Amino acid sequence: MSRTLKVGVIGLGFFGARHARVHAVHPSAELVAVCDQDPAAVEQLSSLTGAQGFGDFRDLLAMPGLDAVSICLPDRLHEDAAIAAAEAGKAILLEKPLAHSAEAARRIVAAVERSDARLMVGHILRFDPRYVQAFHAAAPERLGTPIHLRARRHAVRSTARRLGDRSSILFYMGVHDVDAMQWIARSRVARVYAQKREVLGNGNEDALYAVVNFENGAIGCIDYSWAWPDGLMNGFRSSFEIVGTRAATYVDCADQGFYVVDDSATSGGDTHLWPEINGRIAGDLADEIGHFVEATLQGRPYLQHHREALDAIPVLDALAESAKSGRTVDVLR
Amino acid sequence: MSRTLKVGVIGLGFFGARHARVHAVHPSAELVAVCDQDPAAVEQLSSLTGAQGFGDFRDLLAMPGLDAVSICLPDRLHEDAAIAAAEAGKAILLEKPLAHSAEAARRIVAAVERSDARLMVGHILRFDPRYVQAFHAAAPERLGTPIHLRARRHAVRSTARRLGDRSSILFYMGVHDVDAMQWIARSRVARVYAQKREVLGNGNEDALYAVVNFENGAIGCIDYSWAWPDGLMNGFRSSFEIVGTRAATYVDCADQGFYVVDDSATSGGDTHLWPEINGRIAGDLADEIGHFVEATLQGRPYLQHHREALDAIPVLDALAESAKSGRTVDVLR
Amino acid sequence: MSRTLKVGVIGLGFFGARHARVHAVHPSAELVAVCDQDPAAVEQLSSLTGAQGFGDFRDLLAMPGLDAVSICLPDRLHEDAAIAAAEAGKAILLEKPLAHSAEAARRIVAAVERSDARLMVGHILRFDPRYVQAFHAAAPERLGTPIHLRARRHAVRSTARRLGDRSSILFYMGVHDVDAMQWIARSRVARVYAQKREVLGNGNEDALYAVVNFENGAIGCIDYSWAWPDGLMNGFRSSFEIVGTRAATYVDCADQGFYVVDDSATSGGDTHLWPEINGRIAGDLADEIGHFVEATLQGRPYLQHHREALDAIPVLDALAESAKSGRTVDVLR
Amino acid sequence: MSRTLKVGVIGLGFFGARHARVHAVHPSAELVAVCDQDPAAVEQLSSLTGAQGFGDFRDLLAMPGLDAVSICLPDRLHEDAAIAAAEAGKAILLEKPLAHSAEAARRIVAAVERSDARLMVGHILRFDPRYVQAFHAAAPERLGTPIHLRARRHAVRSTARRLGDRSSILFYMGVHDVDAMQWIARSRVARVYAQKREVLGNGNEDALYAVVNFENGAIGCIDYSWAWPDGLMNGFRSSFEIVGTRAATYVDCADQGFYVVDDSATSGGDTHLWPEINGRIAGDLADEIGHFVEATLQGRPYLQHHREALDAIPVLDALAESAKSGRTVDVLR
Repeated sequence: MSRTLKVGVIGLGFFGARHARVHAVHPSAELVAVCDQDPAAVEQLSSLTGAQGFGDFRDLLAMPGLDAVSICLPDRLHEDAAIAAAEAGKAILLEKPLAHSAEAARRIVAAVERSDARLMVGHILRFDPRYVQAFHAAAPERLGTPIHLRARRHAVRSTARRLGDRSSILFYMGVHDVDAMQWIARSRVARVYAQKREVLGNGNEDALYAVVNFENGAIGCIDYSWAWPDGLMNGFRSSFEIVGTRAATYVDCADQGFYVVDDSATSGGDTHLWPEINGRIAGDLADEIGHFVEATLQGRPYLQHHREALDAIPVLDALAESAKSGRTVDVLR
Repeated sequence: MSRTLKVGVIGLGFFGARHARVHAVHPSAELVAVCDQDPAAVEQLSSLTGAQGFGDFRDLLAMPGLDAVSICLPDRLHEDAAIAAAEAGKAILLEKPLAHSAEAARRIVAAVERSDARLMVGHILRFDPRYVQAFHAAAPERLGTPIHLRARRHAVRSTARRLGDRSSILFYMGVHDVDAMQWIARSRVARVYAQKREVLGNGNEDALYAVVNFENGAIGCIDYSWAWPDGLMNGFRSSFEIVGTRAATYVDCADQGFYVVDDSATSGGDTHLWPEINGRIAGDLADEIGHFVEATLQGRPYLQHHREALDAIPVLDALAESAKSGRTVDVLR
Repeated sequence: MSRTLKVGVIGLGFFGARHARVHAVHPSAELVAVCDQDPAAVEQLSSLTGAQGFGDFRDLLAMPGLDAVSICLPDRLHEDAAIAAAEAGKAILLEKPLAHSAEAARRIVAAVERSDARLMVGHILRFDPRYVQAFHAAAPERLGTPIHLRARRHAVRSTARRLGDRSSILFYMGVHDVDAMQWIARSRVARVYAQKREVLGNGNEDALYAVVNFENGAIGCIDYSWAWPDGLMNGFRSSFEIVGTRAATYVDCADQGFYVVDDSATSGGDTHLWPEINGRIAGDLADEIGHFVEATLQGRPYLQHHREALDAIPVLDALAESAKSGRTVDVLR
Repeated sequence: MSRTLKVGVIGLGFFGARHARVHAVHPSAELVAVCDQDPAAVEQLSSLTGAQGFGDFRDLLAMPGLDAVSICLPDRLHEDAAIAAAEAGKAILLEKPLAHSAEAARRIVAAVERSDARLMVGHILRFDPRYVQAFHAAAPERLGTPIHLRARRHAVRSTARRLGDRSSILFYMGVHDVDAMQWIARSRVARVYAQKREVLGNGNEDALYAVVNFENGAIGCIDYSWAWPDGLMNGFRSSFEIVGTRAATYVDCADQGFYVVDDSATSGGDTHLWPEINGRIAGDLADEIGHFVEATLQGRPYLQHHREALDAIPVLDALAESAKSGRTVDVLR
């Protein structure tokens, strides 16, 4: 493999555009191709970065010399593109969620494992200094045995409205926290009970609450909402906490440390996930993509094995089924 | 009834001592009697306030001219004392929870209703500026229809250890939030699912998570723990939030606005519940007791009718049953 | 003196209306008179409380049986009313600042001291659980010797615009913090250097920064502004900190624990100073007025002696002079 | 210049070790040399990174093929090393402060400007998402004219004790904020008044307060302390705020979003400056060094011109002089 990783980005929405911009300035990456069904999006990123534009990801995958792809499509389109990229033997950075169902996720993983391809799922919290430090603080020798843990992710309703029936609170937001809970608790969710609510008419659920049980005996609480009025400071909120027999650790992302006050309101801004600093995207997303580029070039394992990423998906399926049936559901592995 | 309310305090533990001190300096109250099975506690409060000391609440209730009592006994002793006070026709300020079970609570209420007695339950959040303002902000014309709501109450493990099997997380802490949820949502809990954990060996559960459904369709999340290591800043945490179709409101009691830093740690202190200011107890507890004294003297209704306080207890019973059985439980009213 | 304190309120603006409402429901006070030059304000409070209305404070002071007055007039009118009340022998609760200049303040104090009157200045921070606990935490045996301390009080520009040239940042807001600094540091300000800015055209200064020296060697920093855009969360901010050789303590009033989110913004509300709870005014102001009523009735000293309140005024004068001259100014005592 | 930047690090203390580790893993940098007078420090970094070890920076500078150096020496040693590196024509990343006095700083700049060398000063706040976003929010078209601004940097006393007389609060910590104030206000400090305190016996001042005037008329307040007891949560605090005629913006670095609770205390950790994430140093410092490496390789200007960095130093000198003399001091440019 060459000293520079030749990368293509498939899907140029919110995340795809950011992936493209990060690859374009990474010292070890060369953004050679971008792809979207919307010609305007292609044209914009293409002229910004000099990458060749495509309307069909199969054409992009056929580009000679291409080493890797970032796939940033809507959830339901992950399967086709990821399997095609796997069959083409590319290194794949797949934006979360791995897929829109446990079955689709397993098919993607199977395709990767029977090919020369490599797969990293974009679980950005694995690159967030707050969550990573919580992971270290929750090491058994520091935390003891986990007793209870809670994860929360809240956003404003305009997010839910924008996504409509193309995504769901579980797959768009919830996968972050299910992955984080299993990662930081060093244990997997075994059983779930969930209730959801759908009043705002956005084509998806407004909120979902769940109580879960982990294989190691810990109990968990999941708290998802994208029903907040749009005036919520900073537009989103996430938090995480785990209490063990010896110590506890928690993350609270409400405060971003930066505020603007005008005549009508106090507002803030993202200072961790993908802040734009001095003309480039910094923060967790840049670190995640940098890791993908460098680990791929150097043939090192990715920070998270794709099998561990896969572990989150059946929990989402179980949560969805419980919220629908009103009964506790065992997670099928 | 005389212009000054003659009051006795039954039970002189943490809360009883505070009730006694607040009554003793209230301009319209006269603390005439204190009672505890521990002679040392009686002696201490008696010499501090000049009130007559008793070892048996029945003797205290027989004191001529006594108008009212604060009952601050352990949960399981509420029933006997409250029924005796009701039969004696006293105005009763009963520390929460009303009782240790729905049956006991109903017997207390029945005794009050067949007598001349009056009953107010010490739901202190009804006097906390944060929760009261949230209640007003959640009025239907401001909030719209409630979509989801969450209540949380966390404390350090030394609290759980101190109380041991004399109380439980639901009755000692949880009743606050169940009452607050039903009050602020203007609706009652209809069904619950809970899981609890018991690892620390304190004689009670370490934590309990629940998902609940309200009669008006809203979903709720309950998050209780007293498993936190003792170094938790301020020693306890509570919060509340409710999101409606039009607006949302939340309370966060993590920050008390006051901090002390020494060589080993940053710590804080209570500035809302019962802070000691200039030699007397101020804050929510003083306002609650003041309301009891004045409303009793003036014959006005208490802020919360005892039937509304009663509504919280069957929810606690249902939560306990669900946590035990692992099944959803309908609240029996 | 009768068992109930007969009180009149002079000046029915923002604070006067609140004083009247608190006196009206205090168990030991009887609000018998209210006075303002605006007949509509008089009419409103008079019908709300049943108190007799006056247009001239001299008529109010002549009312038979009147024991005490709350004076809540604009700064520059304090002198005449307070001296007249002193000469009439009333107990006086005088809203801060004592007066609009050190000379006027000394004349008021002289009038009080040559009469039977008593005087308490409305330094509300002396009743705020956050500042009072900081005062206790700063006791020499806990804090050691004070090294440096800082006080800050910020508000939105509509406050400055509303007051215009009737008040100044130093007298309207700053007196709180000068009093708090001297109280908590157990020392008086000896020398000051200040700079101010006046750009917004509100008829008063937008902001003032000062560095001060205390008699005990500590250095201090004063940070006042009412130039913030009106969208500042909660509308105002105050904080205080003191670092000593052994420990440190601080107060931060940014977070009030209560929030409302609607489509356009996240806002909060006062939960400490004078929150309206269950139809009455609670918090620091109610506790301050209650102290005045009860200490007056019982003939006990007020929490703060009027001479200590007087100590703040020459510091304000020195700050104003320094801000004008650009030179350090020694405080004249 | 080669595609990879060959870098040496001079001075292997707290910052030097971090510079070395960041250079060592940067895709475009090659850490070829490390230097310290302490052989143990050289040995440690040398074996960690494979870089050649030196005891004298002159030997390091003579290494063939060396492109650039990070200079991370104590303040007073900056001048010699930086001038030697300039004369050797290297690209220089000089940890702040530029120098320990305005004269030394001017001599360094002169050496750079008469050579082929390039100079970037390690003003890390220029890479902090919180401060950078505040800079953008303070653009004249958003903020209007600056009215007042304040900067604050506080640390625990063990920091001051460790540095002793080798540094001062102004040069070690204060240069950050003086640079930030001038950068974000788009104006330079013209006049200062400062007071300092020295009680703790650490060989340097405990705290310094200053009021300053900017060339554009704004007033400023500077608030520095490293007198806090060591139990201060997170160990340090910085904040910044600027209020303009149209809007305001502020940064508050108290909350890092990550907490650990054990039996004795709640503590936190750095999540912005140089957090260690997944085995490497991330955050502001990594972004700063990355910028230096890439801009040097590509021949692009550094984010901050060295002349702008130079502008901070005479303000420090003026602050020191004012704190000593007790008089206002004009900044000499």
